[in-house]
Amino acid sequence: MTEKAFQDYYPDDLSHCYGCGRLNEFGHQIKSYWDGEETVCHFLPEPYHTAIPGFVYGGLIASLIDCHGTGTAAAAKYRAEGRRMDSEPPLRYVTASLHVDFLRPTPIGVPLEIRGRVKEIKNRKVVVEATVSAEGELCARGHVVAVQMPENMVPGKAHCKDTREEHPE
Amino acid sequence: MTEKAFQDYYPDDLSHCYGCGRLNEFGHQIKSYWDGEETVCHFLPEPYHTAIPGFVYGGLIASLIDCHGTGTAAAAKYRAEGRRMDSEPPLRYVTASLHVDFLRPTPIGVPLEIRGRVKEIKNRKVVVEATVSAEGELCARGHVVAVQMPENMVPGKAHCKDTREEHPE
Repeated sequence: MTEKAFQDYYPDDLSHCYGCGRLNEFGHQIKSYWDGEETVCHFLPEPYHTAIPGFVYGGLIASLIDCHGTGTAAAAKYRAEGRRMDSEPPLRYVTASLHVDFLRPTPIGVPLEIRGRVKEIKNRKVVVEATVSAEGELCARGHVVAVQMPENMVPGKAHCKDTREEHPE
Repeated sequence: MTEKAFQDYYPDDLSHCYGCGRLNEFGHQIKSYWDGEETVCHFLPEPYHTAIPGFVYGGLIASLIDCHGTGTAAAAKYRAEGRRMDSEPPLRYVTASLHVDFLRPTPIGVPLEIRGRVKEIKNRKVVVEATVSAEGELCARGHVVAVQMPENMVPGKAHCKDTREEHPE
Protein backbone atom coordinates (compact mmCIF):
# COMPACT_ATOMS: atom_id res chain seq x y z
CA MET A 1 0.00 0.00 0.00
CA THR A 2 1.30 3.46 -0.81
CA GLU A 3 -1.26 5.19 1.42
CA LYS A 4 0.14 6.39 4.75
CA ALA A 5 -0.98 4.47 7.82
CA PHE A 6 -2.72 6.21 10.73
CA GLN A 7 0.37 5.65 12.85
CA ASP A 8 2.59 7.41 10.30
CA TYR A 9 0.79 10.66 11.17
CA TYR A 10 1.56 10.44 14.90
CA PRO A 11 3.96 13.21 15.96
CA ASP A 12 7.54 11.99 16.46
CA ASP A 13 7.48 12.40 20.25
CA LEU A 14 4.32 10.24 20.43
CA SER A 15 5.65 7.51 18.11
CA HIS A 16 7.53 5.33 20.58
CA CYS A 17 4.70 2.99 21.56
CA TYR A 18 5.82 -0.65 21.66
CA GLY A 19 2.69 -1.65 19.78
CA CYS A 20 2.36 1.04 17.15
CA GLY A 21 5.20 3.54 17.28
CA ARG A 22 7.14 3.74 14.04
CA LEU A 23 10.17 4.93 16.06
CA ASN A 24 10.21 1.96 18.48
CA GLU A 25 12.74 -0.34 16.84
CA PHE A 26 11.90 -3.20 19.23
CA GLY A 27 8.13 -2.91 18.87
CA HIS A 28 5.40 -4.25 16.62
CA GLN A 29 5.02 -1.09 14.48
CA ILE A 30 1.50 -1.99 13.41
CA LYS A 31 -0.04 -0.09 10.48
CA SER A 32 -3.77 0.69 10.29
CA TYR A 33 -5.78 1.98 7.34
CA TRP A 34 -9.32 2.86 6.37
CA ASP A 35 -11.26 0.28 4.39
CA GLY A 36 -14.57 1.99 3.75
CA GLU A 37 -16.28 2.49 7.10
CA GLU A 38 -14.02 -0.06 8.76
CA THR A 39 -10.34 0.07 9.60
CA VAL A 40 -7.92 -2.74 8.93
CA CYS A 41 -4.45 -3.84 10.04
CA HIS A 42 -2.48 -6.90 8.99
CA PHE A 43 0.16 -8.37 11.25
CA LEU A 44 2.32 -11.47 11.05
CA PRO A 45 3.29 -12.67 14.55
CA GLU A 46 6.86 -13.79 15.11
CA PRO A 47 7.42 -17.52 15.69
CA TYR A 48 8.16 -16.80 19.37
CA HIS A 49 4.83 -14.99 19.89
CA THR A 50 3.41 -18.30 20.93
CA ALA A 51 0.97 -19.37 23.64
CA ILE A 52 0.71 -23.11 23.49
CA PRO A 53 2.90 -24.26 20.56
CA GLY A 54 1.02 -23.68 17.31
CA PHE A 55 -1.08 -20.79 18.56
CA VAL A 56 -0.65 -17.05 19.00
CA TYR A 57 -0.06 -15.54 22.43
CA GLY A 58 -3.21 -13.90 23.78
CA GLY A 59 -1.28 -10.93 25.10
CA LEU A 60 -0.19 -10.11 21.55
CA ILE A 61 -3.77 -10.35 20.33
CA ALA A 62 -4.82 -7.96 23.11
CA SER A 63 -1.97 -5.62 22.13
CA LEU A 64 -2.97 -5.57 18.47
CA ILE A 65 -6.59 -4.80 19.37
CA ASP A 66 -5.42 -2.09 21.77
CA CYS A 67 -3.19 -0.21 19.31
CA HIS A 68 -5.46 -0.71 16.31
CA GLY A 69 -8.24 0.61 18.54
CA THR A 70 -6.44 3.81 19.52
CA GLY A 71 -5.32 4.34 15.92
CA THR A 72 -8.89 3.87 14.72
CA ALA A 73 -10.08 6.31 17.39
CA ALA A 74 -7.72 9.03 16.18
CA ALA A 75 -8.55 8.46 12.52
CA ALA A 76 -12.29 8.50 13.26
CA LYS A 77 -12.05 11.75 15.18
CA TYR A 78 -10.18 13.46 12.34
CA ARG A 79 -12.80 12.18 9.92
CA ALA A 80 -15.67 13.31 12.17
CA GLU A 81 -14.14 16.78 12.34
CA GLY A 82 -13.56 16.87 8.60
CA ARG A 83 -9.82 17.24 9.19
CA ARG A 84 -6.85 15.77 7.40
CA MET A 85 -4.64 13.56 9.58
CA ASP A 86 -1.68 15.87 9.04
CA SER A 87 -3.56 18.93 10.31
CA GLU A 88 -2.80 20.62 13.64
CA PRO A 89 -3.25 20.04 16.51
CA PRO A 90 -2.48 16.30 16.33
CA LEU A 91 -4.96 13.86 17.89
CA ARG A 92 -3.59 10.95 19.89
CA TYR A 93 -5.64 8.48 21.91
CA VAL A 94 -4.86 6.25 24.87
CA THR A 95 -6.80 3.28 26.16
CA ALA A 96 -9.14 3.67 29.09
CA SER A 97 -10.41 0.10 28.92
CA LEU A 98 -9.78 -2.97 26.83
CA HIS A 99 -11.87 -6.13 26.60
CA VAL A 100 -10.97 -9.22 24.60
CA ASP A 101 -12.98 -12.40 24.09
CA PHE A 102 -10.79 -15.21 22.82
CA LEU A 103 -13.18 -17.24 20.70
CA ARG A 104 -10.85 -19.93 19.46
CA PRO A 105 -7.12 -20.67 19.43
CA THR A 106 -5.44 -18.38 16.87
CA PRO A 107 -3.07 -20.27 14.57
CA ILE A 108 0.51 -18.99 14.39
CA GLY A 109 2.46 -18.64 11.13
CA VAL A 110 -0.21 -16.82 9.12
CA PRO A 111 -1.03 -13.09 8.89
CA LEU A 112 -3.72 -11.86 11.24
CA GLU A 113 -6.36 -9.40 10.11
CA ILE A 114 -7.53 -6.91 12.72
CA ARG A 115 -10.65 -4.93 11.80
CA GLY A 116 -12.12 -1.99 13.68
CA ARG A 117 -15.54 -0.37 13.66
CA VAL A 118 -16.33 2.88 15.45
CA LYS A 119 -19.31 2.49 17.77
CA GLU A 120 -19.34 5.91 19.42
CA ILE A 121 -17.59 9.26 19.23
CA LYS A 122 -18.43 11.58 22.09
CA ASN A 123 -16.30 14.50 23.24
CA ARG A 124 -12.91 13.03 24.20
CA LYS A 125 -14.04 9.40 23.96
CA VAL A 126 -14.15 6.98 21.02
CA VAL A 127 -15.44 3.41 21.38
CA VAL A 128 -14.11 0.87 18.90
CA GLU A 129 -15.08 -2.74 18.35
CA ALA A 130 -12.53 -5.02 16.77
CA THR A 131 -12.18 -8.50 15.36
CA VAL A 132 -9.08 -10.63 14.86
CA SER A 133 -9.20 -13.25 12.13
CA ALA A 134 -6.76 -15.79 10.73
CA GLU A 135 -7.29 -17.41 7.35
CA GLY A 136 -10.83 -15.99 7.29
CA GLU A 137 -11.79 -17.50 10.64
CA LEU A 138 -12.81 -15.23 13.48
CA CYS A 139 -10.51 -15.89 16.46
CA ALA A 140 -11.08 -12.98 18.87
CA ARG A 141 -13.33 -10.00 19.44
CA GLY A 142 -12.27 -6.81 21.19
CA HIS A 143 -13.79 -3.67 22.62
CA VAL A 144 -11.67 -0.57 23.21
CA VAL A 145 -12.65 2.61 25.00
CA ALA A 146 -10.11 5.18 23.84
CA VAL A 147 -9.76 8.69 25.23
CA GLN A 148 -7.90 11.63 23.85
CA MET A 149 -4.50 11.68 25.48
CA PRO A 150 -4.53 13.51 28.79
CA GLU A 151 -2.11 16.38 29.01
CA ASN A 152 -0.12 14.69 31.80
CA MET A 153 1.07 12.08 29.30
CA VAL A 154 2.47 14.65 26.88
CA PRO A 155 6.27 14.35 26.97
CA GLY A 156 7.72 16.99 29.24
CA LYS A 157 4.49 17.30 31.20
CA ALA A 158 4.62 13.84 32.75
CA HIS A 159 3.39 13.17 36.24
CA CYS A 160 1.27 10.32 37.53
CA LYS A 161 -1.96 12.09 38.28
CA ASP A 162 -4.87 10.59 36.41
CA THR A 163 -6.87 13.07 34.40
CA ARG A 164 -8.97 10.48 32.65
CA GLU A 165 -11.59 10.50 35.35
CA GLU A 166 -11.86 14.22 34.92
CA HIS A 167 -12.64 13.68 31.25
CA PRO A 168 -14.63 10.45 31.24
CA GLU A 169 -16.63 11.58 28.21
CA MET B 1 12.61 -16.33 46.69
CA THR B 2 13.55 -19.99 46.78
CA GLU B 3 9.95 -21.16 46.41
CA LYS B 4 9.06 -22.40 42.92
CA ALA B 5 6.78 -20.19 40.89
CA PHE B 6 3.47 -21.47 39.49
CA GLN B 7 4.94 -21.33 36.00
CA ASP B 8 7.88 -23.55 37.01
CA TYR B 9 5.39 -26.40 37.42
CA TYR B 10 4.02 -26.14 33.88
CA PRO B 11 4.95 -29.20 31.80
CA ASP B 12 7.81 -28.56 29.36
CA ASP B 13 5.61 -28.77 26.27
CA LEU B 14 3.27 -26.13 27.73
CA SER B 15 6.08 -23.77 28.80
CA HIS B 16 6.62 -21.80 25.59
CA CYS B 17 4.15 -18.99 26.22
CA TYR B 18 5.59 -15.58 25.33
CA GLY B 19 4.21 -14.18 28.58
CA CYS B 20 4.96 -16.89 31.10
CA GLY B 21 6.81 -19.82 29.54
CA ARG B 22 10.16 -20.49 31.21
CA LEU B 23 11.33 -22.05 27.91
CA ASN B 24 10.53 -19.01 25.72
CA GLU B 25 13.86 -17.23 25.59
CA PHE B 26 12.33 -14.16 23.91
CA GLY B 27 9.40 -13.85 26.30
CA HIS B 28 8.61 -12.20 29.61
CA GLN B 29 8.95 -15.36 31.76
CA ILE B 30 6.79 -13.96 34.55
CA LYS B 31 6.82 -15.71 37.93
CA SER B 32 3.75 -15.89 40.16
CA TYR B 33 3.50 -16.98 43.80
CA TRP B 34 0.98 -17.33 46.59
CA ASP B 35 0.89 -14.56 49.18
CA GLY B 36 -1.76 -15.75 51.61
CA GLU B 37 -5.07 -15.82 49.78
CA GLU B 38 -3.72 -13.58 47.02
CA THR B 39 -1.17 -14.25 44.32
CA VAL B 40 1.65 -11.91 43.41
CA CYS B 41 4.06 -11.33 40.53
CA HIS B 42 6.75 -8.68 40.18
CA PHE B 43 7.91 -7.56 36.77
CA LEU B 44 10.30 -4.86 35.59
CA PRO B 45 9.37 -3.67 32.09
CA GLU B 46 12.17 -3.11 29.59
CA PRO B 47 12.92 0.50 28.62
CA TYR B 48 11.40 -0.13 25.18
CA HIS B 49 8.08 -1.36 26.66
CA THR B 50 6.88 2.18 26.42
CA ALA B 51 3.57 3.75 25.44
CA ILE B 52 4.04 7.48 25.51
CA PRO B 53 7.61 8.11 26.70
CA GLY B 54 7.76 7.69 30.49
CA PHE B 55 4.89 5.24 30.72
CA VAL B 56 4.41 1.51 30.31
CA TYR B 57 2.77 0.10 27.19
CA GLY B 58 -0.83 -0.97 27.89
CA GLY B 59 -0.45 -4.14 25.87
CA LEU B 60 2.25 -5.28 28.28
CA ILE B 61 0.03 -4.53 31.25
CA ALA B 62 -2.74 -6.58 29.63
CA SER B 63 -0.25 -9.40 28.99
CA LEU B 64 0.93 -9.45 32.60
CA ILE B 65 -2.66 -9.58 33.86
CA ASP B 66 -3.46 -12.33 31.35
CA CYS B 67 -0.59 -14.65 32.27
CA HIS B 68 -0.71 -13.95 36.00
CA GLY B 69 -4.43 -14.70 35.73
CA THR B 70 -4.01 -18.09 34.07
CA GLY B 71 -1.21 -18.96 36.50
CA THR B 72 -3.40 -17.99 39.43
CA ALA B 73 -6.24 -20.07 37.97
CA ALA B 74 -4.08 -23.19 37.83
CA ALA B 75 -2.66 -22.68 41.31
CA ALA B 76 -6.14 -22.08 42.74
CA LYS B 77 -7.53 -25.22 41.15
CA TYR B 78 -4.71 -27.35 42.58
CA ARG B 79 -5.33 -25.77 45.98
CA ALA B 80 -9.12 -26.31 45.72
CA GLU B 81 -8.51 -29.97 44.92
CA GLY B 82 -6.01 -30.36 47.74
CA ARG B 83 -3.33 -31.28 45.21
CA ARG B 84 0.35 -30.41 45.00
CA MET B 85 1.32 -28.49 41.87
CA ASP B 86 3.68 -31.26 40.82
CA SER B 87 0.94 -33.91 40.94
CA GLU B 88 -0.54 -35.52 37.80
CA PRO B 89 -2.37 -34.74 35.62
CA PRO B 90 -1.05 -31.20 35.17
CA LEU B 91 -3.53 -28.32 35.13
CA ARG B 92 -3.03 -25.56 32.55
CA TYR B 93 -5.43 -22.72 31.87
CA VAL B 94 -6.03 -20.50 28.85
CA THR B 95 -7.85 -17.19 28.71
CA ALA B 96 -11.45 -17.05 27.55
CA SER B 97 -11.81 -13.34 28.22
CA LEU B 98 -9.65 -10.51 29.46
CA HIS B 99 -10.73 -7.08 30.64
CA VAL B 100 -8.39 -4.27 31.67
CA ASP B 101 -9.27 -0.84 33.05
CA PHE B 102 -6.31 1.51 32.76
CA LEU B 103 -6.79 3.79 35.74
CA ARG B 104 -3.76 6.02 35.36
CA PRO B 105 -0.55 6.14 33.32
CA THR B 106 1.86 3.48 34.65
CA PRO B 107 5.37 4.85 35.16
CA ILE B 108 8.20 3.00 33.42
CA GLY B 109 11.51 2.19 35.11
CA VAL B 110 10.13 0.74 38.33
CA PRO B 111 9.00 -2.83 39.16
CA LEU B 112 5.30 -3.50 38.72
CA GLU B 113 3.35 -5.55 41.24
CA ILE B 114 0.55 -7.68 39.82
CA ARG B 115 -1.82 -9.17 42.42
CA GLY B 116 -4.53 -11.74 41.79
CA ARG B 117 -7.60 -12.79 43.75
CA VAL B 118 -9.75 -15.77 42.85
CA LYS B 119 -13.41 -14.80 42.53
CA GLU B 120 -14.89 -18.08 41.32
CA ILE B 121 -13.90 -21.68 40.68
CA LYS B 122 -16.53 -23.68 38.86
CA ASN B 123 -15.89 -26.86 36.88
CA ARG B 124 -13.38 -25.92 34.16
CA LYS B 125 -13.58 -22.17 34.78
CA VAL B 126 -11.68 -19.90 37.19
CA VAL B 127 -12.35 -16.16 37.43
CA VAL B 128 -9.48 -13.99 38.65
CA GLU B 129 -9.40 -10.30 39.47
CA ALA B 130 -6.07 -8.53 39.28
CA THR B 131 -4.46 -5.23 40.09
CA VAL B 132 -1.29 -3.67 38.71
CA SER B 133 0.54 -1.19 40.93
CA ALA B 134 3.72 0.86 40.62
CA GLU B 135 5.39 2.37 43.66
CA GLY B 136 2.31 1.55 45.74
CA GLU B 137 -0.09 3.34 43.38
CA LEU B 138 -2.86 1.40 41.67
CA CYS B 139 -2.49 1.84 37.89
CA ALA B 140 -4.74 -0.82 36.34
CA ARG B 141 -7.39 -3.38 37.23
CA GLY B 142 -7.98 -6.60 35.36
CA HIS B 143 -10.53 -9.38 35.14
CA VAL B 144 -9.61 -12.75 33.64
CA VAL B 145 -11.92 -15.65 32.84
CA ALA B 146 -9.62 -18.65 32.56
CA VAL B 147 -10.66 -22.08 31.37
CA GLN B 148 -8.85 -25.36 31.64
CA MET B 149 -6.95 -25.88 28.41
CA PRO B 150 -9.09 -27.54 25.75
CA GLU B 151 -7.69 -30.75 24.37
CA ASN B 152 -7.31 -29.27 20.88
CA MET B 153 -4.55 -27.00 22.17
CA VAL B 154 -2.48 -29.88 23.53
CA PRO B 155 0.64 -30.16 21.34
CA GLY B 156 0.14 -32.88 18.76
CA LYS B 157 -3.62 -32.54 18.91
CA ALA B 158 -3.79 -29.08 17.37
CA HIS B 159 -6.60 -28.04 15.11
CA CYS B 160 -8.58 -24.82 15.08
CA LYS B 161 -11.95 -26.03 16.29
CA ASP B 162 -13.07 -24.21 19.39
CA THR B 163 -14.00 -26.46 22.26
CA ARG B 164 -14.32 -23.66 24.77
CA GLU B 165 -17.96 -23.09 23.95
CA GLU B 166 -18.58 -26.74 24.65
CA HIS B 167 -17.11 -26.25 28.13
CA PRO B 168 -18.20 -22.74 29.06
CA GLU B 169 -18.30 -23.69 32.72
